[in-house]
Amino acid sequence: MDATDPNRGRFIVFEGGEGAGKSTQLKALVARLRESGLEVVSTREPGGSPGAEALRDLLVRGEAGRWSPMSELLMMYAARSHHLETVIRPALARGAWVVSDRFADSSRAYQGAGGGVAPELIEQIDAAVVADTQPDLVLVMDMPPEAGLARAQARGDMENRFESKGLAFHARLRDGFLRRADALPQRYRVLDADRTIEAIAAEVWASVVAAFPDLERRT
Amino acid sequence: MDATDPNRGRFIVFEGGEGAGKSTQLKALVARLRESGLEVVSTREPGGSPGAEALRDLLVRGEAGRWSPMSELLMMYAARSHHLETVIRPALARGAWVVSDRFADSSRAYQGAGGGVAPELIEQIDAAVVADTQPDLVLVMDMPPEAGLARAQARGDMENRFESKGLAFHARLRDGFLRRADALPQRYRVLDADRTIEAIAAEVWASVVAAFPDLERRT
Repeated sequence: MDATDPNRGRFIVFEGGEGAGKSTQLKALVARLRESGLEVVSTREPGGSPGAEALRDLLVRGEAGRWSPMSELLMMYAARSHHLETVIRPALARGAWVVSDRFADSSRAYQGAGGGVAPELIEQIDAAVVADTQPDLVLVMDMPPEAGLARAQARGDMENRFESKGLAFHARLRDGFLRRADALPQRYRVLDADRTIEAIAAEVWASVVAAFPDLERRT
Repeated sequence: MDATDPNRGRFIVFEGGEGAGKSTQLKALVARLRESGLEVVSTREPGGSPGAEALRDLLVRGEAGRWSPMSELLMMYAARSHHLETVIRPALARGAWVVSDRFADSSRAYQGAGGGVAPELIEQIDAAVVADTQPDLVLVMDMPPEAGLARAQARGDMENRFESKGLAFHARLRDGFLRRADALPQRYRVLDADRTIEAIAAEVWASVVAAFPDLERRT
């Protein structure tokens, strides 16, 4: 996949901890990109394709702690491989834009920084599975884990298996996302997610336009 | 895990292509080891623990070609990690012997030699997941793929997804097993599986006694 090919679609990912408002911001961005006349594939991880959703079901089903971080990591990348092969790469190749709620950085954060799987192993698997389909832009929705956890619990939609892990785990996740963004400033934007939906959406759009200047000609 | 610990159990694996009689020989060996007074855990891959069996179901369900070799490899090692953590390592630690119908060499053969996943990636994942729980003895049931496939088809128990792959695929599997055995002669024995059940069982037992001389004192 040649990222410099002007006919190839663009790949945007929302990342961040629990309760950071990723899904809300993703919906708003997808709507705005579609208004610009683009074909946009809105997807999520874990999941996003039938095989990957079946693996997601297996991951979230059953008691917390059923899977070790190592098993989780391998299942996540098995699902990601299916998602890339059947959804993401075909979409980008036909010129569609892909916007995903989570992608590989969630594995780096949850199973790596949070779960203790060696970063070297994650990068070896990532290089084989994701290879050159790296996101063009990653938007990290950042907020203190205390606030994010309170929001997620109030909504009641947080996945069981990470709810009980405590603040220290979620602080490691946040640190994992921020260190990744710091190491790759050209492709990452960290957004303060502890603001109004409208304020964040405006900054999301500004970040996207800054990353893909051709968009301005359409809007 | 210290393989030189005399109180640790031993880990024996049967490998080989379709129709080579692995399950029959495994049952006979397990019975004979139990007659020697040993606690023996008889298991299989993919599967062998509840989480790993759920992954096995997902792998074999659905149409052939649902999963790419890369997804299959990652699911196999996710299942293997669960199998090791919950069944194999606890058994070996308490002094039980573990005999498994297939283990990591089947991933090397089916997804590597047969499916084209890079051997380097498989070894990186294996080093992290299996680590020092490598089998003490691997018995490779070897026969020409033509004969093995005919046997498996006559029995009607061959997994759908490998049935249609053709002789060239199964020849690559055989080559994969034989090269592995060739590279690690101290831990591998290649047995001609195109003989009577009794003749093979006698050689299996002789191979096991040769590998673990302490057994003779028990029998």
